[in-house]
Amino acid sequence: MHNRLQLSATVEREADLRYTPAGIPVLEMWLRHQSRQPQAGIERDVSCEIQAVLIGDGAPRWAGKLTGQCIAVSGFIAQRSLRNPRLVLHIEHVELIKG
Amino acid sequence: MHNRLQLSATVEREADLRYTPAGIPVLEMWLRHQSRQPQAGIERDVSCEIQAVLIGDGAPRWAGKLTGQCIAVSGFIAQRSLRNPRLVLHIEHVELIKG
Repeated sequence: MHNRLQLSATVEREADLRYTPAGIPVLEMWLRHQSRQPQAGIERDVSCEIQAVLIGDGAPRWAGKLTGQCIAVSGFIAQRSLRNPRLVLHIEHVELIKG
Repeated sequence: MHNRLQLSATVEREADLRYTPAGIPVLEMWLRHQSRQPQAGIERDVSCEIQAVLIGDGAPRWAGKLTGQCIAVSGFIAQRSLRNPRLVLHIEHVELIKG
């Protein structure tokens, strides 16, 4: 089943690096996206905010380096928890976009 | 700026086809996704619900035919409105997945 989001965004805020009880590093962040997208023959302004999380080896590598940066990310979306349907992007790949 | 979501999902509900004041057809629907995705060395169950909208020529072509179907869609995500930050998938391409 496909589930893949590719997004360019600015990192508005990063949480402190934390570890799961099993010792896996977790870095949560909040992304803001703005672009123009073609739709039904016109260009429309598109914006959104999405919470994102980087789990595993990438988390300590990027921790503290992302706030304010423009990044290109890809990963899958999932609801935050069984009780919270808010969408979270689980980042599989991240790279900085040069300004 | 990249903004592209590819998702396989079941259509839980479809709204009635409507038209904007400019006469552009709009079909709103609600999608449920379930899959397993690899993360930090393990497979995790992933699920989410996302509202989606098909705007333009595709809307009347698919109206009334999607509820209960499994589909593969791609498009961009945007917040619902200036005041409502909920994410909506703007569908650019849809195809039925054979069961």
